[in-house]
Amino acid sequence: MRIVVLTGGIGGARFLLGVRAYAREVGAEVTAVVNVGDDLRLHGLRVCPDLDSVMYTLGGGADPERGWGRTGESWTVKDELAAYGAEPSWFGLGDKDLATHLVRTQMLDAGYPLHEVTEALATRWQPGIRLLPATNDRLETHAIVSARSELASPAVTNDAHGVEFGGTQRAIHFQEWWVRHRAQLPTHRFVFVGADAAKPAPGVTEAIAEADVVLIAPSNPVVSITPILAVAGLRDAVANGPAPVVGVSPIIGGAPVRGMADRCLAVVGVECSAAGVGQLYGARSAGGLLDGWLVAEEDAQTLVPQVSVRAAPLRMSDEAATVAMVRAAVGMA
Amino acid sequence: MRIVVLTGGIGGARFLLGVRAYAREVGAEVTAVVNVGDDLRLHGLRVCPDLDSVMYTLGGGADPERGWGRTGESWTVKDELAAYGAEPSWFGLGDKDLATHLVRTQMLDAGYPLHEVTEALATRWQPGIRLLPATNDRLETHAIVSARSELASPAVTNDAHGVEFGGTQRAIHFQEWWVRHRAQLPTHRFVFVGADAAKPAPGVTEAIAEADVVLIAPSNPVVSITPILAVAGLRDAVANGPAPVVGVSPIIGGAPVRGMADRCLAVVGVECSAAGVGQLYGARSAGGLLDGWLVAEEDAQTLVPQVSVRAAPLRMSDEAATVAMVRAAVGMA
Repeated sequence: MRIVVLTGGIGGARFLLGVRAYAREVGAEVTAVVNVGDDLRLHGLRVCPDLDSVMYTLGGGADPERGWGRTGESWTVKDELAAYGAEPSWFGLGDKDLATHLVRTQMLDAGYPLHEVTEALATRWQPGIRLLPATNDRLETHAIVSARSELASPAVTNDAHGVEFGGTQRAIHFQEWWVRHRAQLPTHRFVFVGADAAKPAPGVTEAIAEADVVLIAPSNPVVSITPILAVAGLRDAVANGPAPVVGVSPIIGGAPVRGMADRCLAVVGVECSAAGVGQLYGARSAGGLLDGWLVAEEDAQTLVPQVSVRAAPLRMSDEAATVAMVRAAVGMA
Repeated sequence: MRIVVLTGGIGGARFLLGVRAYAREVGAEVTAVVNVGDDLRLHGLRVCPDLDSVMYTLGGGADPERGWGRTGESWTVKDELAAYGAEPSWFGLGDKDLATHLVRTQMLDAGYPLHEVTEALATRWQPGIRLLPATNDRLETHAIVSARSELASPAVTNDAHGVEFGGTQRAIHFQEWWVRHRAQLPTHRFVFVGADAAKPAPGVTEAIAEADVVLIAPSNPVVSITPILAVAGLRDAVANGPAPVVGVSPIIGGAPVRGMADRCLAVVGVECSAAGVGQLYGARSAGGLLDGWLVAEEDAQTLVPQVSVRAAPLRMSDEAATVAMVRAAVGMA
C-alpha cells in the first residue's frame, strides 16, 4: 500500500507521526509532499520551516513544547546577529536549527536540487517516510497587506521584502506576516510567488500517480496546503490521479486546533469551520479535490456537497490517537 | 602622527592593544593592515581568522585564555554540523563567532568589498584603530606537502582542498595544515594563491604612503606577514615608502613566543632566531624592508646586516609592557 500525504509543518508533522505508525502496522510506504511556501532566505541561509518541522518531528529532534524547532535549542547566534544589528531579528533562528540551514544552503549553492538536499539531511534524521518538497523551484507565499496600515511599524515600509502594489497595497513575505506581525495586519489576499513557473519536485507526481490513497493533513489549508496545490500541475495530478483523496479537517468546533488558520481563512473569505474548509477543497466530482472529508465528532453534522463526510476523534493528543485518525481517513478511501 | 602596523592574528592583536594605548598617549592615528591569507570558506561562510582575532581583541570580546575566538563561546552549531557529517569538522567554529561570518558572508555576497564589510563589523566592536584587510581579493595561503606522507590520514587525500602537484606533492589550505595537522606534515613550501593578481585593499597603500612609521608586528613572519607582503605592490609600497620601517621580533631566545612559527620557519629554511627572521625581512638598504629591528633582551647580540638592532623586553605580559615595546619600536624610527 502506498500513501501520499500533502502536508505543512507543525500540525502536519504530528499527523505524520500517526501516518508512519499506521504504515508500519499495515506495511505501507509513505511519501510526504511538504509545503515550501514558507521558505525564506535568512542571513543568507535557506530556511525551510515546514520540511524541518516534519524532519525534526519524525526524527525525534523537535521541541514538543514550543511546537517548532529543535529540542534543547539555544539562541546564541540569534543574539549575536542582533548585536550586529542584522535584520530580520524577529525570526526564531536557533543554534541547532542553524546547522541544518548551513548544510542545506551549501548543498543548494553547490547545485544540488532541494529534494536531494532534503534526502541528504534525512540520512541523519531517519524520518522513516520519504520527504519531498512540493517543488525545487522558488515558490514564496506573500501576504498582500494595506500599505499604510496603522499596525505596520515604520520599519516594515523599508523592508526589502516589501513590494508596493499601486501605493495602497504591499506584499510581505509570509514569515514576516506570520511571525513578526502575528497575522494581525489588515490583509487582502495571499499570493504564491513563482507558483506558475514552479514544477513539482522529481518524484512528486510519480508518487501521486502510484498512490493507493492521498491524504490531506490537518494543516493550515490556506498557507500550507494551497501553496502545494499552486505548483503548476500538482493540483491536476491529485485531482485527476487514480487514488482516492481524503482530507482531515484542521478545524474542530469552529476553531483551529493550533496556529492561526482562522486568520488565514478570514483573508480568503472562508468560514472557519469543517464545512468551510471542506468546501474550499471541494468535491473531486465538481472540479475540487476531495472524495472523503474526515471531521471531528463535534462537527459530525458537516455537509460538503458530493463529498463523503465521516466523523472521528481528531485531537492528536498522542500517537495512538493519531493512528486512529489515520486509520479512519484511510478507511474512507 | 600616523602609525601603520602590518599584522596577523593573535600575537598581532595583542601587540595592537599596546599600539592603541600608545597612540592614545601621543595622539596618533593607527591603521592595521591585516593578513587575509588564513581566510577560508567554511560551510559556505567566509571566515577571516586574523581580522576577527584583531577585531575581537581590540573590541574586548576575545577569549584571553584560548587566545582565539570569542569569550564565553559555545559550540552548538559545530556539534550539529558534525552530526550531519559536514566537513571540515576540525575547525573551531564557535556559535558567537559564526554570527560574524554570517553577517560578513551576506555582505560579501551582496557585493560589498571586504574592507567595507570589515568597517561595518567594526561599528559594533569599536576597535579604536582602523582595520584594513591586506587585500579584498582572493589570497589563500596553501602548504605544499608530500602527497603520500605517512602522517597524512587517508581522508586528507580525498579532501577537496587538496591539489595534486605532479603526484608527489599536494597543496592544502593553510588552515588544514595548521589546525587539522598541527603543522606536523612534511612540507616543502608555502604558496600564496592569488597574490599576483591581488591588489591592496583601498586605503592600504595610501596609509603606508602617509605613515610616519610602519611597524611589523611580532606575528608569524612566514604565514602572517609574508602573505601581506605578497599582495602585488604592497611590498614595494612599504619598501619604497617615506616612513621608516621597524619590525618587532616574534622569536625570543630561539623560540616563538606562541604558535608554531618555528615549524613555518623550518619550511622556508630560516633559522628560528631573532637574527633569522630579521634577515628574512632584510635591510631596506639591501632590497629588504627593515630600518630597525627590535629584539628581546635575550637576543641583544643579534646582528642583521645594515639594520639598526635594539633590545627591549618583548614579552607582552600586559598592556603596559606592550606599550613599552611599542614606544621602543617607534623610538627607533
